[in-house]
Amino acid sequence: MRIYHKIPELKEYIAFQKAKWRSVGLVPTMGFLHEGHVSLIEKSASENDLTVVSIFVNPTQFGPNEDYETYPRDFEADSQAARNAGADILFAPPPDEMYPDGYGTYVYVEGLSDLLCGKSRPDHFRGVASVVCKLFNIVTPDRAYFGQKDAQQLVIIGKMARDLNMGVKIIGCPIIREEDGLAKSSRNTYLSSDERKRAAALCRSLYRAQEMVQAGQRNAGIIHDAMIQTLKEASPDLIDYVEIVNADTLQPVELLAGRVLIALAVRFGQTRLIDNIVLEV
Amino acid sequence: MRIYHKIPELKEYIAFQKAKWRSVGLVPTMGFLHEGHVSLIEKSASENDLTVVSIFVNPTQFGPNEDYETYPRDFEADSQAARNAGADILFAPPPDEMYPDGYGTYVYVEGLSDLLCGKSRPDHFRGVASVVCKLFNIVTPDRAYFGQKDAQQLVIIGKMARDLNMGVKIIGCPIIREEDGLAKSSRNTYLSSDERKRAAALCRSLYRAQEMVQAGQRNAGIIHDAMIQTLKEASPDLIDYVEIVNADTLQPVELLAGRVLIALAVRFGQTRLIDNIVLEV
Repeated sequence: MRIYHKIPELKEYIAFQKAKWRSVGLVPTMGFLHEGHVSLIEKSASENDLTVVSIFVNPTQFGPNEDYETYPRDFEADSQAARNAGADILFAPPPDEMYPDGYGTYVYVEGLSDLLCGKSRPDHFRGVASVVCKLFNIVTPDRAYFGQKDAQQLVIIGKMARDLNMGVKIIGCPIIREEDGLAKSSRNTYLSSDERKRAAALCRSLYRAQEMVQAGQRNAGIIHDAMIQTLKEASPDLIDYVEIVNADTLQPVELLAGRVLIALAVRFGQTRLIDNIVLEV
Repeated sequence: MRIYHKIPELKEYIAFQKAKWRSVGLVPTMGFLHEGHVSLIEKSASENDLTVVSIFVNPTQFGPNEDYETYPRDFEADSQAARNAGADILFAPPPDEMYPDGYGTYVYVEGLSDLLCGKSRPDHFRGVASVVCKLFNIVTPDRAYFGQKDAQQLVIIGKMARDLNMGVKIIGCPIIREEDGLAKSSRNTYLSSDERKRAAALCRSLYRAQEMVQAGQRNAGIIHDAMIQTLKEASPDLIDYVEIVNADTLQPVELLAGRVLIALAVRFGQTRLIDNIVLEV
């Protein structure tokens, strides 16, 4: 596995590989790789001649009081994990390689970025879209792989790629969960052991919603209230949101129909966790 | 010369050409081609294996009370002019090919877009950056050619291409002028014959500034006032701005030094004209 920290060298190598008609898959990550990331890398490796994993804790997607400084980092473990999962290239630029002095260009996806997580994280998706746009231009992938756990991110990046004619196929991959159902996340390491136990309430509330839908319930308000009840049993420190929306437009639905995304964000202590489920109703 | 109206067909043809190692130059235009555009096409044809001219009157860069509907269009004459100048491909998409229903992704270049023309045209450069980003992704040019007449646009696109790692070389080309010095512009056709005569005051005021600088004047305020005086002799209907700025940052300078852009926007009747000069001081 080749490791690059600089953009020009990486671009040169990829141009050389593409000239040999090699297909390129990209797995953009913020590092601290877990089984969720590994599943993306393995999928990319199975579908492309060359798999690029990027590791970049992107400052522009963190709010001023968020965890940019303390976000967990472990380059050695990440290199090992990426290599083992089948990555051919690891791209780990320092911040000033991605955002040199005077940087100032941002990509904004209207209508999707100020909903759900965007309400409490106002510039988050602008930062996500911009850095992914840059990574697409640097790596020129044929396919890019994102976890379904960040459901809103996946919808926004899909729309950005279509709207800006990027010619990259965006592929969403299933959420990987712990045994008790907690979605794998680099931020799970923040949880105390008590918080960790209580955090399983996120997926319990989603499973409860799924069961209600399977039993015929279509009223979003009733499902929402049952989910809140399940969450409250775990005494979360904050329920940021529980929302039932159209999976493509992210607009709230009152009666469930078609592809529905049920998404939530909950805080235990200082740790904000997200989870979701997509139901075909 | 091949003519394309649809994005997928154009992309397919260009991918086929690039696979044969052909270099691609792009000249983005809004059509109604004049000698300024022709000079860009000729330069691209001399530097690239394949020259793509796009003709698209981009709705997102016009304000609500601007001339999108009335902007001059002449596809037959443009095809002829592009072919004669050496274009290999004409790309002329209809609006809904570029902006399908539900379109919503925009590129914004901070710090440069709300100055000069951006003050009176608040969303203009967001529309320009977004459509050029799309064209770059569709055409994947090695080089793209823009007229120096739209000086602010050239700076913004250069910054966008660098910031977003687009890998396109942005090439600015000299302003082409009428005999009396008026910068060629598709909008010159709006002018009455009286307005047309008076409009030469734009470049006269720039030449006056240039002479003052050559004579040793470095005080931006004094040069500005002299330019206003020259403009006023032609009784313009509005002097939108006359500004003396750093040619890279577009920030106003008080004492001229380094690369300085002197830019102005003036209205005769309903027609807003721009012009500029770059001086190495």
